[in-house]
Amino acid sequence: MILPATLPTVVRQPGLPAAVRVYEVGPRDGLQAEKTVVPTATKVEFVQRLVRAGLDTVEVTSFVSPRWVPQLADAPDVVAGLDLHAARHPVLVPNERGLDRALECGVWEIAVFASATEAFARNNLNSTVDDSLRMFEPVVRRGREAGMRVRGYVSMCFGDPWEGTVAPAQIAAVAGRLLEMGVTSLSLGDTIGAGTAGQVIALVEHLVGAGVDRDVVAMHFHDTYGQALANVHAALTAGIAEFDASAGGIGGCPFARSATGNLATEDLVWMLTGLGYDTGVDLPELVATSVWMSQVLGRPSPSAVVRAMARDGGGQS
Amino acid sequence: MILPATLPTVVRQPGLPAAVRVYEVGPRDGLQAEKTVVPTATKVEFVQRLVRAGLDTVEVTSFVSPRWVPQLADAPDVVAGLDLHAARHPVLVPNERGLDRALECGVWEIAVFASATEAFARNNLNSTVDDSLRMFEPVVRRGREAGMRVRGYVSMCFGDPWEGTVAPAQIAAVAGRLLEMGVTSLSLGDTIGAGTAGQVIALVEHLVGAGVDRDVVAMHFHDTYGQALANVHAALTAGIAEFDASAGGIGGCPFARSATGNLATEDLVWMLTGLGYDTGVDLPELVATSVWMSQVLGRPSPSAVVRAMARDGGGQS
Repeated sequence: MILPATLPTVVRQPGLPAAVRVYEVGPRDGLQAEKTVVPTATKVEFVQRLVRAGLDTVEVTSFVSPRWVPQLADAPDVVAGLDLHAARHPVLVPNERGLDRALECGVWEIAVFASATEAFARNNLNSTVDDSLRMFEPVVRRGREAGMRVRGYVSMCFGDPWEGTVAPAQIAAVAGRLLEMGVTSLSLGDTIGAGTAGQVIALVEHLVGAGVDRDVVAMHFHDTYGQALANVHAALTAGIAEFDASAGGIGGCPFARSATGNLATEDLVWMLTGLGYDTGVDLPELVATSVWMSQVLGRPSPSAVVRAMARDGGGQS
Repeated sequence: MILPATLPTVVRQPGLPAAVRVYEVGPRDGLQAEKTVVPTATKVEFVQRLVRAGLDTVEVTSFVSPRWVPQLADAPDVVAGLDLHAARHPVLVPNERGLDRALECGVWEIAVFASATEAFARNNLNSTVDDSLRMFEPVVRRGREAGMRVRGYVSMCFGDPWEGTVAPAQIAAVAGRLLEMGVTSLSLGDTIGAGTAGQVIALVEHLVGAGVDRDVVAMHFHDTYGQALANVHAALTAGIAEFDASAGGIGGCPFARSATGNLATEDLVWMLTGLGYDTGVDLPELVATSVWMSQVLGRPSPSAVVRAMARDGGGQS
């Protein structure tokens, strides 16, 4: 009888962090990049299923202007449909107007989205790095005053499609500004997915040298060039203990130029489980959720684990 | 203007091997698992294009009985179509009859294919582990006497679909027997792709403790659960310096149960290039070769780098 490899053999690696956190971004970072219109009730069900599968942090949506990201225009309705205390449910807020809307909805954890490069700030935030950070200052301050945890994303940390190589000093400067404002954690993003393991380790060392505590740093890798999980491994060896991932790897079609190629939560959980970490995630239930969502989106999941486990008869929705 | 990220930023990681080797298995391990009948002339062109793209070791075919693997029945014709001194061109031989055929064709490097588990030996080799090793003894001895380099594959090193977890001592026993026979290198395979980073490091340490030199050990990872490149990274940190990969990730359909999910050479080369290794590979030329082969096979390449670079206008065949 052939055993489906539903869970990896557990062998710990010496020297890695004692515990790790998985920060689920699928409903926000994944769905915002999808062309398919997903009904509000389906978004709510998606978040609820992710929580039931054991994810204790699920970023829900973004209170960005509906003019910019029409896919997320229903942010208040999604939040209203959820038990905000069933898990940590951060939402992205781009400015004070977004914060006000989030506060009205009872949100108790937020994130802001900064850029390490001027080119991406201009193209994505329609601003300069400095102006966008100034805009975040009152958001972070007021969020903290309201007792919120506030996460600061820093994008384009491993290469920029307009500027090319990004110097660690640039990232450290933006990270330092965000920490001064009061963010409680940072998420450093490889927005184009081109980074490799040596860069990851060098960046962590640069930040630690600049006085940043490893414990406040999460890494957000994209799999555009297949490097995401290798980069997670490199980051683990450098002492990083929080990783962003998207259930099923959703976020941009893998066959389109706009692909964001988020690291799939399932592939991350497979590795972490093998390394002996208790992620709290029920992998077959998570796979079933991603199989269901891939049907909603009308295309197969790019996650290797989802494909393998669905094939083996696990993860049927 | 958006720069396509045709090459990663180079940042070395301290403590890794000074140099690495990429061992290309696409024409043999890839094509033997493909259902599409590939004409002999196309196989020859595939190997030639891989060599032109800079790969200095390309395993060509297998002199297995045509009854077992009809896709490789043209092994002598493929070899006859090649300049066997344009690169290292090992071929797989299952027994003395295969060795005789390979010698007649002027082959000067061979590989044998052993199993770490009884279940896989029975199911794949129709033998026991011990009997199959006995069968390889004269093959290795005569190959060495003929001045050949001889590689010993060991499959199922990170989990077996019938037996589950595989103990490092089992792998060390098979590896030890092969080294005693005279093989010049070992390739340890994660045949089901379920292994994770801690297992990789523990296995290397176990083998080194058993007296095996890291320099004779290659690792052969499959991407079935998305772990292949993370496992390469783990192996690099453990001092392993040779990795098997398949151009374009060919070898079994990624959407079929039989998927072998070979690590894509392009994804490996991306990481190694980022880590500062000179692989000698021209990545756009390799991507162009894989795009062409994906057209031959009638389905898109599962390699992330192939998809990303073909999308960016690189890698057109």
